[in-house]
Amino acid sequence: MATVGVLTGGGDCPGLNAVIRAIVKAAEQRYGWSVKGIVDSFEGLIRGSELRDMSSRTIRGILPLGGTVLHSSNKGNPFTYQVTKNGKTTIEDVSDQVLANVEKLGLDALIAIGGDGTNRIAHRLYKKGLAVVGVPKTIDNDLCATDVTFGFNSAVTTAMECLDKLHPTAASHHRVMVVEVMGRYTGWIALESGLAGGADVILIPEIPYDIDTVTHKLMERAKLGAGFSIVVVAEGARPTGGDVEVVAEGGPGKGLERLGGAGQRLAECIIERTDLNVRVTVLGHIQRGGSPSAYDRNLATRFGAKAMGLVNKGRFGEMVCLSGQEVTSVPIAEAIADYKWVPLDSGPVLTAEAIGINLGR
Amino acid sequence: MATVGVLTGGGDCPGLNAVIRAIVKAAEQRYGWSVKGIVDSFEGLIRGSELRDMSSRTIRGILPLGGTVLHSSNKGNPFTYQVTKNGKTTIEDVSDQVLANVEKLGLDALIAIGGDGTNRIAHRLYKKGLAVVGVPKTIDNDLCATDVTFGFNSAVTTAMECLDKLHPTAASHHRVMVVEVMGRYTGWIALESGLAGGADVILIPEIPYDIDTVTHKLMERAKLGAGFSIVVVAEGARPTGGDVEVVAEGGPGKGLERLGGAGQRLAECIIERTDLNVRVTVLGHIQRGGSPSAYDRNLATRFGAKAMGLVNKGRFGEMVCLSGQEVTSVPIAEAIADYKWVPLDSGPVLTAEAIGINLGR
Amino acid sequence: MATVGVLTGGGDCPGLNAVIRAIVKAAEQRYGWSVKGIVDSFEGLIRGSELRDMSSRTIRGILPLGGTVLHSSNKGNPFTYQVTKNGKTTIEDVSDQVLANVEKLGLDALIAIGGDGTNRIAHRLYKKGLAVVGVPKTIDNDLCATDVTFGFNSAVTTAMECLDKLHPTAASHHRVMVVEVMGRYTGWIALESGLAGGADVILIPEIPYDIDTVTHKLMERAKLGAGFSIVVVAEGARPTGGDVEVVAEGGPGKGLERLGGAGQRLAECIIERTDLNVRVTVLGHIQRGGSPSAYDRNLATRFGAKAMGLVNKGRFGEMVCLSGQEVTSVPIAEAIADYKWVPLDSGPVLTAEAIGINLGR
Amino acid sequence: MATVGVLTGGGDCPGLNAVIRAIVKAAEQRYGWSVKGIVDSFEGLIRGSELRDMSSRTIRGILPLGGTVLHSSNKGNPFTYQVTKNGKTTIEDVSDQVLANVEKLGLDALIAIGGDGTNRIAHRLYKKGLAVVGVPKTIDNDLCATDVTFGFNSAVTTAMECLDKLHPTAASHHRVMVVEVMGRYTGWIALESGLAGGADVILIPEIPYDIDTVTHKLMERAKLGAGFSIVVVAEGARPTGGDVEVVAEGGPGKGLERLGGAGQRLAECIIERTDLNVRVTVLGHIQRGGSPSAYDRNLATRFGAKAMGLVNKGRFGEMVCLSGQEVTSVPIAEAIADYKWVPLDSGPVLTAEAIGINLGR
Repeated sequence: MATVGVLTGGGDCPGLNAVIRAIVKAAEQRYGWSVKGIVDSFEGLIRGSELRDMSSRTIRGILPLGGTVLHSSNKGNPFTYQVTKNGKTTIEDVSDQVLANVEKLGLDALIAIGGDGTNRIAHRLYKKGLAVVGVPKTIDNDLCATDVTFGFNSAVTTAMECLDKLHPTAASHHRVMVVEVMGRYTGWIALESGLAGGADVILIPEIPYDIDTVTHKLMERAKLGAGFSIVVVAEGARPTGGDVEVVAEGGPGKGLERLGGAGQRLAECIIERTDLNVRVTVLGHIQRGGSPSAYDRNLATRFGAKAMGLVNKGRFGEMVCLSGQEVTSVPIAEAIADYKWVPLDSGPVLTAEAIGINLGR
Repeated sequence: MATVGVLTGGGDCPGLNAVIRAIVKAAEQRYGWSVKGIVDSFEGLIRGSELRDMSSRTIRGILPLGGTVLHSSNKGNPFTYQVTKNGKTTIEDVSDQVLANVEKLGLDALIAIGGDGTNRIAHRLYKKGLAVVGVPKTIDNDLCATDVTFGFNSAVTTAMECLDKLHPTAASHHRVMVVEVMGRYTGWIALESGLAGGADVILIPEIPYDIDTVTHKLMERAKLGAGFSIVVVAEGARPTGGDVEVVAEGGPGKGLERLGGAGQRLAECIIERTDLNVRVTVLGHIQRGGSPSAYDRNLATRFGAKAMGLVNKGRFGEMVCLSGQEVTSVPIAEAIADYKWVPLDSGPVLTAEAIGINLGR
Repeated sequence: MATVGVLTGGGDCPGLNAVIRAIVKAAEQRYGWSVKGIVDSFEGLIRGSELRDMSSRTIRGILPLGGTVLHSSNKGNPFTYQVTKNGKTTIEDVSDQVLANVEKLGLDALIAIGGDGTNRIAHRLYKKGLAVVGVPKTIDNDLCATDVTFGFNSAVTTAMECLDKLHPTAASHHRVMVVEVMGRYTGWIALESGLAGGADVILIPEIPYDIDTVTHKLMERAKLGAGFSIVVVAEGARPTGGDVEVVAEGGPGKGLERLGGAGQRLAECIIERTDLNVRVTVLGHIQRGGSPSAYDRNLATRFGAKAMGLVNKGRFGEMVCLSGQEVTSVPIAEAIADYKWVPLDSGPVLTAEAIGINLGR
Repeated sequence: MATVGVLTGGGDCPGLNAVIRAIVKAAEQRYGWSVKGIVDSFEGLIRGSELRDMSSRTIRGILPLGGTVLHSSNKGNPFTYQVTKNGKTTIEDVSDQVLANVEKLGLDALIAIGGDGTNRIAHRLYKKGLAVVGVPKTIDNDLCATDVTFGFNSAVTTAMECLDKLHPTAASHHRVMVVEVMGRYTGWIALESGLAGGADVILIPEIPYDIDTVTHKLMERAKLGAGFSIVVVAEGARPTGGDVEVVAEGGPGKGLERLGGAGQRLAECIIERTDLNVRVTVLGHIQRGGSPSAYDRNLATRFGAKAMGLVNKGRFGEMVCLSGQEVTSVPIAEAIADYKWVPLDSGPVLTAEAIGINLGR
């Protein structure tokens, strides 16, 4: 029986376990492959760690769970791997070691579930001969080559539920609630959670915001007796003329991520210009966690079954994706070309402005 | 300022208030129309009841609410209206009265939000000269002419959450849980909630089920030590050779709906054939209620804004719809042609079978 | 190191895993005992099945899970055990076998987590010399000797969330929603979920209901323009003069439980007497499932830690309980004396009537 | 018919609308009083603003809503009211104006729902002759004279749900998650949400924490292969020897509240001392929002009905409270004497330590 290894890379994302489960079930029930789990993403392959047997029995109950039973790691890029020997740290290319370990561990193919970074690594390994299939993953929904990624709907749902909680508080206390949501480069989460959560202002990285149109909107609402406003701001949103200031996750050295930069900065600007009563909430990591939504469980399950189908057909170098309502596949190379920005003439953007939501422009 | 009336017809569906809100906001912020609410669907137009002023202020806070602030009614079909005079009840066509009332009430156009029935009425009134735009609504997702209807994702989510609750109970007590979900004619809710909720068997109206393949699957799981199973059955599912036995909502006369016919019948069949420990749960009306999901709020909001845009352009006789990722419109006539059945070669069906879910065939 | 065995008996109840986890953690971190899991309740002890090692590692992640990782069984009463030999079935007392197995398996003590039935068995075994401590468990909250049981708040929460979903549907469609909740003998769930879910009528086993006062209340609401009502009825509620008709869980032979008897009967009575638009929903097993509420996780955790403390002190024959805000213990004998009925002059009952809720009297 | 006014003061708290609803329903159904709503707390009485008619009809649907339909205000202390005349701002005692307005508005009595501050004002007005009854309100559960306050269970539930989301993320990525929850002066929310959410370390204001015992616990878990930890820290927690540094809500002048001081400081200390992978999440205002839990709705409803009963009996100067399982009342004077600290030998604290949770001591 042929054997496929599975790994999960990059940041956390609701639905990873649903993909893993679907791969295992499809391998067992349909394709007759055996599945092995690789722990800690490419790090596990670099170390050549022992694999985990994956079967219907071992994956029982993981469908509704957040996180990934295979764990993840941000450190294991085999092309730029940090090696410490005799107290000296160097950056080395250990990709040959990965290929050797894949063979040594008896893997006939690999499914790599991850975001931009993971798929880039998968692509480079594929060009070196690895039989690999990619599954896209990001809560940010910013991978081109797929209309939607699993995890996104769950993140939007979590953010919307928080907005639902903040709404009556804002109204009761006549407040402007500034809510920072995830989205370093793109505004998908901000836009969709803001629409769903009844935001009055939504600020996204794709539209540098004019602070004066924002405060004008807030003052207008105050004048009309609304007495409160909800402002959703993506962590990558910035004012016109503002610098692009983005701190990579984990940052350099041991530094902590900065908390809520975009939300805090915006709130300060509003306070400087108005006498409104402003509060900031930074949703942070809860957007990456929790049980996946129905939409995401189904998309992830379809992605997993499709990936196993591609493996079975030997269609390596491809990545599964959603196109319209169909799950299909594209060359990984296409998938990692660029971010998928929010198109400024797309349905949600036009709808937002039609119902009077201010986008800072 | 021109005035548009809005009504909601048919069964309950999460997202109705989000549509109403988007219509009002788009009318106010973008198109310069005034909006009036018609209470109790076409019944309100037949009676010529007083209209409700709808403004940003009156609709505040309704986005997350289930139900419809405009109420609904199943009785008000103006073409077959039940009239009781002098103790005698007759069925009459009062559609002219509706047209007259629309004029008397000062409405320049109408937006009808509803399912199959509501859109059929809207279409007939349109052919008689009413300036009407339709918005499709059904938790069952069975309207052709739109890829997805709002309310469906919320119903699937509610059903999935119930399955999540039943799963550990089934596992702890070695039980077969038969769960009946909505879907008189189509299996969309059963299929998507079953996939998302980890069902082992999913039975839908589109596939008359062979009870022996079902019990075979359940016995196989018992033998393999799983010790429990989850069976999701649509209320319209029936065994091969079984009669199509569907009771219309509300039923004839004053009769109560029968509770859980499909689930109960299936459970009895399983018990006759096996010694498995079976329990039935009928989810019922909770699937129609609750706060709409993020997906549905956004789809409903886009539908509402689009409907107001169609009204403003004078594109009457059309119904808004989702095609791929785009909100667009079609003639209402197309929309009411037939049910949208689950295609047996669609992605979710193929995925279900690839991961070993039994569909009764 | 001394060893304690743990088992879970009876119906499902959110919080069982939280008790198990607290026992294991307290044994490990505080008391220096080793913990073994007994699978399938007393059935496991009768068969003398292999025990499961329980440690911080094996119980990781179970706190939020419904169900019980040790599984349960309704069949294993050692005093009336059904034995089938040579095709003949007899009822035997195998309690000596249990005591022998406890010794053979190397258990120095036992913690039995369960309801009325489980604690009765524990008590009888204790009198025969078993070193056993009890932990009360029932979603029905009907065990005397403890102010509250874990699982109850979760069940009330689930029922309330369903009522929240049904409320707008009832209001939108001018309906009377009859909602049957659990409670064969006592009305705790009905009373507390009805209060929390905004019920207009709450019917409990402790108060045989006068159907005329119920329909009077419903008609009065209709007259005042409320146009809808929510009626919560415990499965054990019955009309005045009605027979006490209670079907034991699982019933005799292989029969299915009857679905929604109390709710269905009540709805029929309302329909006979009024022209109201009535719908029935039977919440069923979802009330037993799902992730335990914060209240229940904490109560269960306190119960588990306390039980392990009692074991360590050799206080056998006792059952942990909540008294006011304190977790303490009582002799098991006291705990199984009688049901804890809803006192008709208690705070929740008086509050319900003060705010105009009809209790059928 | 006599008339009672109702106001809600202080910060937001789930359950306020449930209290209001119970007062209105009890007044209408039981006591024969008319109820008027005072908008914006004491501010509304100072301004003598128009009152709102409150009836079953106007309060329909508010039971599950967060916030308060009567709005709140932090500015309206009539004893130290900020008055701006001719560009000059002074602090004045306008309590006589409040008493005069109460009479002018035709109020025979007042129910003040609020926290420490609101009850202090109510008490001083009572001593000046106002017929006032108090209802305690705080999510922090830190009011002495009542065993539990409504809002607390909801806040704990929200925090626990966030911990549930963060748990798998922490585990998947081998992280220490530092989660800051509300609690400036007391640790109730941190303790109960930490217990319910499976925290490994819980730091509360009542126990200044020794950073070395905290990092020791975290390193020990890392060594034992747990690979991740959850640390819950109250916003008022501080290290031993640390300064008591608490910023009042809203702060002086127009300043923003500082985000996540306690969590950020703790994370930095852990990073300085270990090589653990640390992330901070600050839950913030979402803990004050959202639909009240079943527990809180029922406690709030009982408080509201009881308050109306006290008004009807003329028992002014009293505040309703929970004692054990009974709702009763105490003189307001007793209620505002001091904070209710977490007793260090209470059940939850002892349980936490018994199961190995580190409390920083």
